[in-house]
Amino acid sequence: MSGSPADHRNALPPAIADGPLDESLVRVRRDFHRFAERGWMEVRTAGRIIRTLEALGWDVEYGRAVIDADARMGVPPDDTLASELQRALDQGADPDLAAELQGGFTGVVATLRGRHPRPLIAVRFDIDANNGDESSAADHRPFADGFASANEGAHHNCGHDGHTAIGLGLARVLAERRDTLPVDVRLIFQPAEEGVRGAAAMVAAGVVKDVDVFLGCHIGFQAQRVGHVIAGYRNLLASTKFDVEFTGRTAHAAMAPHEGRNGLLAAATAVQGLYAISRHGDGETHVNVGYVTGGEPRGEARNAIPARATLRGEVRGSTNAVADYMFRRARQVIEHAAGMHDVEFSLDVVGRSPAANSDQALAAIVSTAAAEIPGIDEVSQSADFHASDDVTAMMVAIQAQGGHAAYVGIGSRLDSGHHTPRFDFDERALRIAVDLLASTIDLIPAESAARLARPGAPGSARG
Amino acid sequence: MSGSPADHRNALPPAIADGPLDESLVRVRRDFHRFAERGWMEVRTAGRIIRTLEALGWDVEYGRAVIDADARMGVPPDDTLASELQRALDQGADPDLAAELQGGFTGVVATLRGRHPRPLIAVRFDIDANNGDESSAADHRPFADGFASANEGAHHNCGHDGHTAIGLGLARVLAERRDTLPVDVRLIFQPAEEGVRGAAAMVAAGVVKDVDVFLGCHIGFQAQRVGHVIAGYRNLLASTKFDVEFTGRTAHAAMAPHEGRNGLLAAATAVQGLYAISRHGDGETHVNVGYVTGGEPRGEARNAIPARATLRGEVRGSTNAVADYMFRRARQVIEHAAGMHDVEFSLDVVGRSPAANSDQALAAIVSTAAAEIPGIDEVSQSADFHASDDVTAMMVAIQAQGGHAAYVGIGSRLDSGHHTPRFDFDERALRIAVDLLASTIDLIPAESAARLARPGAPGSARG
Amino acid sequence: MSGSPADHRNALPPAIADGPLDESLVRVRRDFHRFAERGWMEVRTAGRIIRTLEALGWDVEYGRAVIDADARMGVPPDDTLASELQRALDQGADPDLAAELQGGFTGVVATLRGRHPRPLIAVRFDIDANNGDESSAADHRPFADGFASANEGAHHNCGHDGHTAIGLGLARVLAERRDTLPVDVRLIFQPAEEGVRGAAAMVAAGVVKDVDVFLGCHIGFQAQRVGHVIAGYRNLLASTKFDVEFTGRTAHAAMAPHEGRNGLLAAATAVQGLYAISRHGDGETHVNVGYVTGGEPRGEARNAIPARATLRGEVRGSTNAVADYMFRRARQVIEHAAGMHDVEFSLDVVGRSPAANSDQALAAIVSTAAAEIPGIDEVSQSADFHASDDVTAMMVAIQAQGGHAAYVGIGSRLDSGHHTPRFDFDERALRIAVDLLASTIDLIPAESAARLARPGAPGSARG
Amino acid sequence: MSGSPADHRNALPPAIADGPLDESLVRVRRDFHRFAERGWMEVRTAGRIIRTLEALGWDVEYGRAVIDADARMGVPPDDTLASELQRALDQGADPDLAAELQGGFTGVVATLRGRHPRPLIAVRFDIDANNGDESSAADHRPFADGFASANEGAHHNCGHDGHTAIGLGLARVLAERRDTLPVDVRLIFQPAEEGVRGAAAMVAAGVVKDVDVFLGCHIGFQAQRVGHVIAGYRNLLASTKFDVEFTGRTAHAAMAPHEGRNGLLAAATAVQGLYAISRHGDGETHVNVGYVTGGEPRGEARNAIPARATLRGEVRGSTNAVADYMFRRARQVIEHAAGMHDVEFSLDVVGRSPAANSDQALAAIVSTAAAEIPGIDEVSQSADFHASDDVTAMMVAIQAQGGHAAYVGIGSRLDSGHHTPRFDFDERALRIAVDLLASTIDLIPAESAARLARPGAPGSARG
Repeated sequence: MSGSPADHRNALPPAIADGPLDESLVRVRRDFHRFAERGWMEVRTAGRIIRTLEALGWDVEYGRAVIDADARMGVPPDDTLASELQRALDQGADPDLAAELQGGFTGVVATLRGRHPRPLIAVRFDIDANNGDESSAADHRPFADGFASANEGAHHNCGHDGHTAIGLGLARVLAERRDTLPVDVRLIFQPAEEGVRGAAAMVAAGVVKDVDVFLGCHIGFQAQRVGHVIAGYRNLLASTKFDVEFTGRTAHAAMAPHEGRNGLLAAATAVQGLYAISRHGDGETHVNVGYVTGGEPRGEARNAIPARATLRGEVRGSTNAVADYMFRRARQVIEHAAGMHDVEFSLDVVGRSPAANSDQALAAIVSTAAAEIPGIDEVSQSADFHASDDVTAMMVAIQAQGGHAAYVGIGSRLDSGHHTPRFDFDERALRIAVDLLASTIDLIPAESAARLARPGAPGSARG
Repeated sequence: MSGSPADHRNALPPAIADGPLDESLVRVRRDFHRFAERGWMEVRTAGRIIRTLEALGWDVEYGRAVIDADARMGVPPDDTLASELQRALDQGADPDLAAELQGGFTGVVATLRGRHPRPLIAVRFDIDANNGDESSAADHRPFADGFASANEGAHHNCGHDGHTAIGLGLARVLAERRDTLPVDVRLIFQPAEEGVRGAAAMVAAGVVKDVDVFLGCHIGFQAQRVGHVIAGYRNLLASTKFDVEFTGRTAHAAMAPHEGRNGLLAAATAVQGLYAISRHGDGETHVNVGYVTGGEPRGEARNAIPARATLRGEVRGSTNAVADYMFRRARQVIEHAAGMHDVEFSLDVVGRSPAANSDQALAAIVSTAAAEIPGIDEVSQSADFHASDDVTAMMVAIQAQGGHAAYVGIGSRLDSGHHTPRFDFDERALRIAVDLLASTIDLIPAESAARLARPGAPGSARG
Repeated sequence: MSGSPADHRNALPPAIADGPLDESLVRVRRDFHRFAERGWMEVRTAGRIIRTLEALGWDVEYGRAVIDADARMGVPPDDTLASELQRALDQGADPDLAAELQGGFTGVVATLRGRHPRPLIAVRFDIDANNGDESSAADHRPFADGFASANEGAHHNCGHDGHTAIGLGLARVLAERRDTLPVDVRLIFQPAEEGVRGAAAMVAAGVVKDVDVFLGCHIGFQAQRVGHVIAGYRNLLASTKFDVEFTGRTAHAAMAPHEGRNGLLAAATAVQGLYAISRHGDGETHVNVGYVTGGEPRGEARNAIPARATLRGEVRGSTNAVADYMFRRARQVIEHAAGMHDVEFSLDVVGRSPAANSDQALAAIVSTAAAEIPGIDEVSQSADFHASDDVTAMMVAIQAQGGHAAYVGIGSRLDSGHHTPRFDFDERALRIAVDLLASTIDLIPAESAARLARPGAPGSARG
Repeated sequence: MSGSPADHRNALPPAIADGPLDESLVRVRRDFHRFAERGWMEVRTAGRIIRTLEALGWDVEYGRAVIDADARMGVPPDDTLASELQRALDQGADPDLAAELQGGFTGVVATLRGRHPRPLIAVRFDIDANNGDESSAADHRPFADGFASANEGAHHNCGHDGHTAIGLGLARVLAERRDTLPVDVRLIFQPAEEGVRGAAAMVAAGVVKDVDVFLGCHIGFQAQRVGHVIAGYRNLLASTKFDVEFTGRTAHAAMAPHEGRNGLLAAATAVQGLYAISRHGDGETHVNVGYVTGGEPRGEARNAIPARATLRGEVRGSTNAVADYMFRRARQVIEHAAGMHDVEFSLDVVGRSPAANSDQALAAIVSTAAAEIPGIDEVSQSADFHASDDVTAMMVAIQAQGGHAAYVGIGSRLDSGHHTPRFDFDERALRIAVDLLASTIDLIPAESAARLARPGAPGSARG
């Protein structure tokens, strides 16, 4: 962290529309990076997105209009929401917008009318920072250049600051060519991607309901060089994230051990059982326990049977059926690890996203567009994602209604891997992404008739 | 916690010698209770003990003279020692003494000459508070009466504040009858009993080297009514306390799980293996893991293989051989739990005490003394301790050199059990303990010839 | 094994009444040893006991009259019972008696009237061989001398052959002194002690209902020298023996592992969970899994998820409450090990005996008697048994009705430990046991008034 | 089982050359099925193969000439080899050949000269039966029609009887068209495929050293309808099979449990640890424990700490590196499960085969050939094998020397799955396989120049 929050109180947002696009993308990205906000608490971030889009002439909706309250997952506790709201206000969040966005409603959707209403094209950008502290090493560029995260425990270590900047850059470019925009375009700025918590709530609110063609992008995944793009990821894994509490009873470990009900032993049994869940014959499976704590950290508490334990885990599968199998088995393991040691448990799903694949026909259009973009020198039609991203909640919703979706990889060298303290990417990737998405949008109306098989959805000329 | 530390800066220590003994015992105990100090950091406590004993005319040694540096176990890290030293100074610790006591040398030994040098009688008192926060419930007397712990994370929840007051009360009583004191008496004020960490370092420094008869006492253990005393506990369990660190390597749980080396899974395997160590045919065994934490608590870290885990445990046995078996097996379990999951580990012994039994011949003298003490209405010759106390390190050292030892139980109703936030005892127990110890000391010289078989140790009159 | 069963078809039973008692005891013991019969299948053994007792003039009951069918535990399957019946007949079992004894009803009770009906004295002898094959080493006396077990898988490796001989020897001695027998005496020959399966069924049939004083004896337990006797064992542990079947579903381990439900993994989980059941603060606990098998032994079956597993275990406690705790927890572990791995299970209790202690007042009478027996040179009033024997089912039933019970140890050097292939004892112990039991019976009527506090049970002279 | 072995003593082998090919294939297959012989013990089977091939005019080698003794894996113990040899002789094995084949040398290689020496084509057939008992259900065709296995514990439940018949049928067809045979052809009859034990020993003996094109086939795998063929399986998994013995020490579970070293607990710990080995980011992994037994099955042995346990397991991976990772980790788990419980262990590799893929260029030639075969109505160019077959040892050896290999699937409905008691296949598949292999051999010389890229290996006309 560097600098004082007070420096930025009431500062004007960096204007995406000012100056050369390359420079404004960097400026905007660094502002989001510095004021990193974690999932469901992107009050300052979402506010700046809204004001920018409004300024560019987009129709903007946000808050409860685009987030279904009940479909949200992993919303932080009220006291965290409250303290983070205050932090956002202290860092210049617009108080009027904050009132609408606070409490976990930090999504934004903007629409620009084109010459035809269909095919409706939507593009999604995730906006949340991750948990974690950013490196303050002298050779870590964000720190050296003064835009490292000002917020303890929050760090844009997955590139969503860049994604957000790309979204605003695309908003500028499309607004500038508004008169020739062939079809309606919708931009979706999604909170809480980390932990796959946010997309489902936007789908439930209807934001992709009438979308025909859907695009999203991620920086630096499987393509680790600027100039390389992946036209459509495949094999985005389905995932369920869960938190477990085991609650037993403590007792003196020598005088009355039988009176104890050992929550930590239940957790240990669960850990072993979870990793031992059988592979599946129909696809790739994964399971992990990222965290366990049980008992009391005080050294002298070692003479007490540990009553409580907390466990945080996840399962994944290369298909929804495989992932469902893993979660069913995980639940069974946890339930019976608790029962075996006579303790109570609770299990909360705090994140969930389906498996998905990019439509390769749409990816082909992306490839076509990419061939013309300066700075792109290698295009992979496809690559396995091998991880999870809740963009899939939108992809499968759109594919289910007959639409097409592609999740596009924007290559960049990374200073260190995603989710590490020294993560940083090459900002030249931002302009490439804007150009690629804009060109793809231009191509889609013409190409879609030929390449995208969609029963009965001809675009009719508007007014 | 209650009150502000600043209230007590430079306050004079409550004088044990002022006013009626009953009242001064309570006053002194409450002062120690309020300024609870954890093991190896009892700088204010030990300073007050020293000044009090000096004022009463005892010869006093302390610091490195009575603590063998290398034999100490479980000394806190330097930064904790430093911040606690400052806290002690802020709460009125004598700066000159603090310079000697700081850094983990908080023991005190005092001697008063009697008419004969032998049998040399020693009495031990433990002085440390425990980890833990004290209750601030309105009906918790220490809180209601304003003497609850002022120090976060430190709580006299095992009665050592009372033991210390008893020691000073005994010092007053013996000093008052100094002219008729039959033999030399030594008082040992021991730090860091919690976690069985301190006694061995005092034994190593030689404080019990020439002791013939040894006494100690504990409030409220197996005797839970004022008026009931236990003349000599049996079956104090041998115990070893240990801390383990498992260190593997993290990796993305879906993209490269095979690159991970799972420290948390090693800890989980160790937990199961430790509890499954076989019972022993020759005596009682116990094992407990009081605490485990592994991986990263951040919710989104659930997608990383957890590299590290910490485990805190203990084993016990009713004989040293049985306890050694348990520790040998525990080490084996931990080593191979690490090896099984390809992770490194370190194992530190942070506390250790042997098994011991009170000499029943000495307990018989305690019983005889107890019969004459007002307020004592029930005397048990013996009771199983069923737990551990590092007084045993002194007991077995003395028994090994032909001396006799008894650990005496002073009955008291408890508000709630030892090591709980609402622990409190009945302060009438303090006076009973002082009287019982003083009377026993009076009886010993005459009784020891008859009752304590000790080869060739006649007391010779001192010039 | 040695010799052919056919050699002994129709051979007359060795007569306990023929020749010097020492010699007949050895002869009888060796006959039982050679034709070792396991629990509930002692058809030849029980038949010989019956015919001998009848010949000596005792009133004899047997079969369903002394065995409650529903209270039996661990009765072998019908085909085993049938084949063993045939084997017994082939080895000279009395066909008429066999018809009554077969099917698991191999108990015998005999009564001899004394001058007074009360106090009624009962003495119990267990008669079953154990599972296991006997050594055929040249220096193993039973093999060298031609009386090693002729029956594969059955071996008197716990001394019950000796106990049975002692019982018949006592029957001879008491019959010989019938005219002066002070009170009624009942001899109980119990099947199926191994696995603690038989005693409860005799208690349920009422065989100890009106017993005032009860004696039993065991050779070579805690007293391993001829001449040493233990007047009354203490701390016979309560025990429950159980068999578990886990039933899942097999599947190809590579093609469809998710379709499997892994019974072997459930058993492995149960094994770890069982050994990890917490100790108990109120007494000694034990748990063991003696056997597990799961999956298919064929080498190539290693590619199949193992559907089934069998587990055989036991728990013990030094009190019934402690043992009940262990069994409750064991059941919980097993149930949830099954549930964790999605498999079915069944759990059968196949043996159960309570904790018990000998009455020390009765042991004192045994001690008094022992002082006069030639060959006894050391008498321990008591010793911990540290194991289980279902004689306790009779002891506690009698103690519950106000009677007194003692289980007596008859010292002997052993060639190797109980339950090992080379087990053998010193046959001089047999005569000592007979003499000790007979003398104790003589003393009881006179001593019982003084030493055995029994509310309102004066013996009245019999018409 | 059906019939008596004596019926067939000295019976002439069914002649593959007699009558219509369809009928002779069935006759030969049923003979092998009835006299099922397990791996390394196919003495009668190999003898009949040799005599048949010799009669057809092939050059035949066998025994130690084609099996490298040291490279064999999982050879049965000597007593099993001896009793199975006797059984084979009793069932009509040629005694002269038996002398060469016995002791685990049951491989056969035959060569027929064509017009050119190159490309040398080899075709492999596995000949062993599996462990297991065959169903004697009335509706199980082999039983109903009298050709069910006569040998207890041996069952052709994987179709190798059919493979062997196909091999002999192909030998007949090629011999019949010998004059026009374009190139040299070698037939490899391999023992001990079950458990992936035999192929490596034939490779080590050099039988594929100069092979240019390699074919093999399997009935009923992924193609479960007669008429469907798979031109070249992909994703044959690498596999390692291993046996583990844990050896501890027994002890009485209540009196001296600490003296025990619990081999069964070590096995249980290993089972849990093995299933919990982490997935791999680079490919498919599998692990299974097919069998564990530990302790003593006798019910009364439940009071003994179980000293010994046996475990049989396997690991697999979709690449050799992934499989090596799995085996390295499995070894680590087993070693430390033993160490954790203070027991010894041995680990024997009893089978091992690499990963492999069919060359798709060669598969294309198979497809071309298939198009012309009557009865084939569906050709899949490829399908994932999803299991292991040690044909891969030959495939990778040939591919490493620049040759080409394809493993071909011959479709058939199965009565029940491979390795089940009711396995049976549709015998029409036999003729289809012979025709397909013969046609492919005809096509290869012409096609190989065009399709199979092989540096500098033109076939030169033979004198």
